Amino acid sequence: MEFAGSHILSIQQFERGDVERIFAVADQMEPYAQRQRVTKVLDGAILGNMFFEPSTRTRISFGSAFNLLGGEVRETTGFESSAIAKGESLYDTARVLSGYSDAIVMRHPQAGSVAEFAAASRVPVLNGGDGSNEHPSQALLDLYTIKKELAGQGRTIDQLRIAMVGDLRYGRTVHSLCKLLSLYRDVQVRLVSPQELRMPADIVEQMRSGGLQVQESEALEESIARVDIVYSTRIQEERFNSQEEADLYRGRFRLNQSVYTAYCEPNTVIMHPLPRDSRDNARELDDDLNDNPNLAIFRQTDNGMLVRMALFALTLDVVDQVAKHSREVNWYTAGRFQ
Amino acid sequence: MEFAGSHILSIQQFERGDVERIFAVADQMEPYAQRQRVTKVLDGAILGNMFFEPSTRTRISFGSAFNLLGGEVRETTGFESSAIAKGESLYDTARVLSGYSDAIVMRHPQAGSVAEFAAASRVPVLNGGDGSNEHPSQALLDLYTIKKELAGQGRTIDQLRIAMVGDLRYGRTVHSLCKLLSLYRDVQVRLVSPQELRMPADIVEQMRSGGLQVQESEALEESIARVDIVYSTRIQEERFNSQEEADLYRGRFRLNQSVYTAYCEPNTVIMHPLPRDSRDNARELDDDLNDNPNLAIFRQTDNGMLVRMALFALTLDVVDQVAKHSREVNWYTAGRFQ
Amino acid sequence: MEFAGSHILSIQQFERGDVERIFAVADQMEPYAQRQRVTKVLDGAILGNMFFEPSTRTRISFGSAFNLLGGEVRETTGFESSAIAKGESLYDTARVLSGYSDAIVMRHPQAGSVAEFAAASRVPVLNGGDGSNEHPSQALLDLYTIKKELAGQGRTIDQLRIAMVGDLRYGRTVHSLCKLLSLYRDVQVRLVSPQELRMPADIVEQMRSGGLQVQESEALEESIARVDIVYSTRIQEERFNSQEEADLYRGRFRLNQSVYTAYCEPNTVIMHPLPRDSRDNARELDDDLNDNPNLAIFRQTDNGMLVRMALFALTLDVVDQVAKHSREVNWYTAGRFQ
Repeated sequence: MEFAGSHILSIQQFERGDVERIFAVADQMEPYAQRQRVTKVLDGAILGNMFFEPSTRTRISFGSAFNLLGGEVRETTGFESSAIAKGESLYDTARVLSGYSDAIVMRHPQAGSVAEFAAASRVPVLNGGDGSNEHPSQALLDLYTIKKELAGQGRTIDQLRIAMVGDLRYGRTVHSLCKLLSLYRDVQVRLVSPQELRMPADIVEQMRSGGLQVQESEALEESIARVDIVYSTRIQEERFNSQEEADLYRGRFRLNQSVYTAYCEPNTVIMHPLPRDSRDNARELDDDLNDNPNLAIFRQTDNGMLVRMALFALTLDVVDQVAKHSREVNWYTAGRFQ
Repeated sequence: MEFAGSHILSIQQFERGDVERIFAVADQMEPYAQRQRVTKVLDGAILGNMFFEPSTRTRISFGSAFNLLGGEVRETTGFESSAIAKGESLYDTARVLSGYSDAIVMRHPQAGSVAEFAAASRVPVLNGGDGSNEHPSQALLDLYTIKKELAGQGRTIDQLRIAMVGDLRYGRTVHSLCKLLSLYRDVQVRLVSPQELRMPADIVEQMRSGGLQVQESEALEESIARVDIVYSTRIQEERFNSQEEADLYRGRFRLNQSVYTAYCEPNTVIMHPLPRDSRDNARELDDDLNDNPNLAIFRQTDNGMLVRMALFALTLDVVDQVAKHSREVNWYTAGRFQ
Repeated sequence: MEFAGSHILSIQQFERGDVERIFAVADQMEPYAQRQRVTKVLDGAILGNMFFEPSTRTRISFGSAFNLLGGEVRETTGFESSAIAKGESLYDTARVLSGYSDAIVMRHPQAGSVAEFAAASRVPVLNGGDGSNEHPSQALLDLYTIKKELAGQGRTIDQLRIAMVGDLRYGRTVHSLCKLLSLYRDVQVRLVSPQELRMPADIVEQMRSGGLQVQESEALEESIARVDIVYSTRIQEERFNSQEEADLYRGRFRLNQSVYTAYCEPNTVIMHPLPRDSRDNARELDDDLNDNPNLAIFRQTDNGMLVRMALFALTLDVVDQVAKHSREVNWYTAGRFQ
């Protein structure tokens, strides 16, 4: 695809070459995200960071990514008090707001809303999550993390073996990741969930017809035994009839250090879209994994910055100018903590 | 008036020369708002964007305007949790906040509050709307839009023919616009509203004694027949005794493409302060007007940026330095969509 | 202490030399806060301004301070909608957010939360107030104000005579200020409060063992008679059994111009952490003091900017580079109002 001036609405718009282009640009963003260099390539540009649904993490990540390229951020975080809530159309909102900014990130609880908004916008719109539908930057940062974690082991996404664990029915994240994986060869996917929360049949079908090898299971231990990645997701109690049932199911899909040591290969990487639950009876990833060097959950969020910087640089067509407008950092970074 | 260091609180403070000065500066802002050039003239300056009442559109517009001049924006959007709500005086709030910023935009639900705040502020304060009282930047952007739309036809605000339609009783916007129009010659104003929502008598009186030709009417069609501008406003149902009554009245003041074609002159410009209603039974401006090239409602919001940039440049006295601190844009703009 | 890369969590971490270092740097910040010069020393750096409890004044002050050093600010102001509220640990939140920023200011209603957050953060964390526990930048700006006010009279904090008036039991501010004062010599403190709101015994004990001369009293007039500083705080009605009792007590601790004239020495400085109450029956500092040149309450908030700029410059280790990256201001400041 041609990125300059394009909207980023769905992972469906990417071919393998597009994904690889995004990842190559994300790699180039590393010195800026790591504060080795400062670039002002987007100096003077304004991001409209429009969050009509709360999501602190994603909002700050997009905003910081734009700042790191030298641009400014104007923001909205509410919904009730917005003109949209008062009955204004997405068309009108888009026409107006796109006159104030050079790019817009939009998050909205309603599936399809971001595409409708983008159709009326005069500047590129990036989907920051539209309800149960899409959250393309999350899927890209997940796949980018997989690529980087495997690269450390001298491997590639082709031939990947991954287990996805938890709520596979409602998890927008795993749906999108599965679709992206269909762009690669010889990928084995193990789907591990309670019956109630199985991956929707149409997505499984799509994966198989796309060439993925898919196995479904309810047994955590055997499923995580010979994989490169365990991708865990949160099981929310409201998905079950009762608290007891929820606790029962959740108990069977928890990963902690002793399960990891007993069943996983030594290099198996643990991922999660966050937030993970910190309540004792609801932990899908135990805190005792925090010192496990293969816990990649915070490398995922760090990678999110790189991917979002890449998306801005591509849609605003400044990839080749990032380095030219850069200089070394003059403030404290040497002691950045681990 | 002397703009440098002044508050912008009310349209009453302007003479015709002041309005023309603002518009001349707004014209100069065009290359920066259009992203042909970037200026950093306010680099290092901070705007306190204080919205004690929600208004996403106005807030973002002021903030983006300050960013486009190179300045930073600090912002508040709540009221309940503010010190003012806890019983702090506007005097104290103004003394404190004006120590943190170089200019302040304030919006507040209470009439007169912004002037009270400004009296204690140590930096210029721009009124972003104080309840039913004033919203001077809106009135200025409306008049600036009228000027530009007419200029395209080789005409000026003197000799303007305008119809104002809808809620003329509570519409702060039309009140202010009428007062500004009194600065011009040979202006004809047609006021079209339900009886319950007529323009207040004192404003009509003021317009007449200011030299405007004013006609009042309840008939949309004949009123919009020979005017340069139709300025439509929203009729809110809470102004009526019942939903039925509201629907009845609203039905009579709706403009759509077929009404436009049947009654308006071919160059008649349609304006609206937004938001317009998008609900089927409440549309004062139908969506089928969206492709009408004379629909100027999004040119109005675009012009708002220019006018707000001009107000900042004038009160902070940098008009002559804007170009000197500027350079060409280096990011993607060529393909900015329509 | 070594400031570079450190967290600022509590006044307990400072020795006298550290406080004096902060104040020396704060002095250097004056030309930038006064808009005589602009520095871009933190150009490219991002502050995560994380307010999980509302505090407009403190939030804007920290944000503006970071902007004045040339950095950008990303911000959160809510709590209910945050991941923390959904059961995410402070550990996870800190790991993620510290990947997006170069420094973090955090305010949170729960005592100890900021320290827990800082332990997991990869960048310096500044405590912006954690419940009843600590608000170190407020204590520092108070002491810095005392230093500057006394310096105008050719005096120093050693030998200070101060009266603290109002709610000394729950007032986090006065607790912290008392602890800081223990670093100085020959300081006399008069504690003036209703019985119900006396300074906690352990803090009084700590002050005495630290060498402070402490007197407790319920009589305002005699206590403010021979002091350099009157530090007044708000008495909140919810601290009493009834409205009547609250009114009775509050009536006895109000300072206005006639009380000041009758009892205070002519140079006695009046301070307050704000907000002061503006309701007629609840004023601890009357509005008729607004023209008293010794009312230092807005100099306190102005000094807050200097202290916060100093904390950022020290923890990010750029003190020596501030001037090097600076230039004169090019916008309107000559007429900055009083």
